[in-house]
Amino acid sequence: MFAKNFSSLKSSITSFDLKFTSLFNQRQVDKLQKCHEQSCCNFSLSQRHLQTSEELIMEEYGEPQLVVKKRSVELPSLKPGEILVRVLASPINPSDINTIQGMYAVKPDLPCILGNEAVAEVIQVESPSGSLEVGNWVIPSYNAWGTWRSHAIAESSDFIKLPSGMDRAAAATLAVNPTTAYRMLRDFVDLKPGDTIIQNAANSAVGRNVIQLCSHYGYKSINVVRDRPTIAELKKELTDLGADVVVTERELRTDRKIRQMDKPALALNCVSGKSATELLRHVQDGGVLVTYGGMARQPVTVPVGSLIFNDVRLRGYWQTRWNLNPDNQSARQEMLNDLCELFKQGKLTPPPYKFVHFSDYQTALKDAMPAEGQVGAKQILVFD
Amino acid sequence: MFAKNFSSLKSSITSFDLKFTSLFNQRQVDKLQKCHEQSCCNFSLSQRHLQTSEELIMEEYGEPQLVVKKRSVELPSLKPGEILVRVLASPINPSDINTIQGMYAVKPDLPCILGNEAVAEVIQVESPSGSLEVGNWVIPSYNAWGTWRSHAIAESSDFIKLPSGMDRAAAATLAVNPTTAYRMLRDFVDLKPGDTIIQNAANSAVGRNVIQLCSHYGYKSINVVRDRPTIAELKKELTDLGADVVVTERELRTDRKIRQMDKPALALNCVSGKSATELLRHVQDGGVLVTYGGMARQPVTVPVGSLIFNDVRLRGYWQTRWNLNPDNQSARQEMLNDLCELFKQGKLTPPPYKFVHFSDYQTALKDAMPAEGQVGAKQILVFD
Repeated sequence: MFAKNFSSLKSSITSFDLKFTSLFNQRQVDKLQKCHEQSCCNFSLSQRHLQTSEELIMEEYGEPQLVVKKRSVELPSLKPGEILVRVLASPINPSDINTIQGMYAVKPDLPCILGNEAVAEVIQVESPSGSLEVGNWVIPSYNAWGTWRSHAIAESSDFIKLPSGMDRAAAATLAVNPTTAYRMLRDFVDLKPGDTIIQNAANSAVGRNVIQLCSHYGYKSINVVRDRPTIAELKKELTDLGADVVVTERELRTDRKIRQMDKPALALNCVSGKSATELLRHVQDGGVLVTYGGMARQPVTVPVGSLIFNDVRLRGYWQTRWNLNPDNQSARQEMLNDLCELFKQGKLTPPPYKFVHFSDYQTALKDAMPAEGQVGAKQILVFD
Repeated sequence: MFAKNFSSLKSSITSFDLKFTSLFNQRQVDKLQKCHEQSCCNFSLSQRHLQTSEELIMEEYGEPQLVVKKRSVELPSLKPGEILVRVLASPINPSDINTIQGMYAVKPDLPCILGNEAVAEVIQVESPSGSLEVGNWVIPSYNAWGTWRSHAIAESSDFIKLPSGMDRAAAATLAVNPTTAYRMLRDFVDLKPGDTIIQNAANSAVGRNVIQLCSHYGYKSINVVRDRPTIAELKKELTDLGADVVVTERELRTDRKIRQMDKPALALNCVSGKSATELLRHVQDGGVLVTYGGMARQPVTVPVGSLIFNDVRLRGYWQTRWNLNPDNQSARQEMLNDLCELFKQGKLTPPPYKFVHFSDYQTALKDAMPAEGQVGAKQILVFD
């Protein structure tokens, strides 16, 4: 199933005019194929079943509460070189919801096990053992692994080992949001302590990581959020995380403190539509707007004068693409080490979250859907 | 007047959120100030008048045919180190029309002498002579020099010398359009022979230069033009210049030849609005859309997925900004030498143009205005 999902991922990406072939290296393809043959569905009944895996799957695209189903699968005994992991926690991210709805760039072949992000614990290792040992905490090394399940059999190299001593929620939500914040602050503009960045959706999981990383690196952050009845509370919450300025979209145009600050060289856009255009008004000449989301379901609209006369630059960021590039693998390990260290030091904290037992997945899916354009606490599935 | 115009240019640019201070170096400011004091308006009546300059000026912003006026000014005798030039030809560019209408990023103080581009001949040199000699052809070294006049007194360093043997129309239209085409093909994507670019407004002056330069460098060009009754004629004309494919906006989506070509890494956008979005659909992953015009008077609208999943990048280009950067001055001389050589070899040709005596400036202005969104032959003012 993985290999099938994977080829579909590639073909759906191609249908989005993406050429990923060079990014998906053959080693990964082979590994996925093997993983599929060994550990997923059609194993022989004569094999000894050591472990039942509870899985959340979909057989058709549609609204999450209608199409996500639960199933139990008996896992076979380990073959040489394999490991058995139990999933400790796996979040429901916006991209998971969009994937289920069939509205994401990645469209897995169906049926498939859902979920892209998780932290798992190695509970059994079959020699010859790889680099992993029983007790290690790991995260999947590639996207679309199918993390909403209690157990899985795989190879060591399908996982990246985390340092010990991590908080479970932090580890479960490490691979998508903090990494996106980290790379966007590093890879587009050469920021120095004292420099300013601006972002919208500042209270999102990525937005909160951006605030905390800016505070750690000594960058000033201007944080735009939507107005709401509890705005004072939210402003305090983000300021406590390290935000220099928190403003509503309306306040952004008139805030006196912002006018006295240097114009940002970097703008991070998760909303698009009018909100992105508003960010562009604040970016300094030659500055970069990086788009990583389209919450407003509107395109990014750029005044011609901003491009020609102000020399603003527009880029996009997608963690999945970055992860798939073989050239980035050592930087990836370094990034994960850095981020884990910051979590352990308390300089990064997970976003507001709620652990939900996977048997309550219907409630978790409902609570993970945006209500009036706003998402509440991150729903994290747990399996024990 | 120059210094006044110049400071206004700076302040108007600042009001457009541009920070040009670092680009306008003090040497240029000082020179403009000196030039103003010596050669423009308020010289002493006791000075000997050697030359009358006929000038096209504006005293207020508005529609070109209403606000452009002609005046005669007696020039004083040369002071040590100065030169006297006679303007051979000076085009009316779209940016000149927009400047007069008050719709351009550069808003000179009024009254001012109009025009940004020209070729002039040095007709008198006062020792100590600089690098220029009588008979040299020169172009202004900075924007907003006021080129719509028959004569001027200035310093050698206010001009860049052209190689001898240039065609007058080619020299007069060298500094804005061919340079824009040249830089856009060089500075954004590392193109190699066989690579493909795509552009709209392919029949514009810049567009024709792009076609010819691509043909010279061995790049394939996909050229988009608006449909018109004379489309067959235009297609032949651009193909004869070296275009690989010429299509109307409608044909762009379905053209079979384009589907068989590699996707372009570079798109050049002079139109914006829907036309830019259409170009983006064709750009390869990681490709760059460079915007240098907004003929459709619409912003550039970018689908969020193009940014995130296709990693398209958006940039702007403005020749004036590039020229003002002190770091670019040796590259500028090299570029002008390259372009002059290509013109002399016939690999570049001027766009369709018409010489118009400056006394007929009203007709020239009328014919330089877009009719139904299309501009005809480039109007080039001559003064002899």
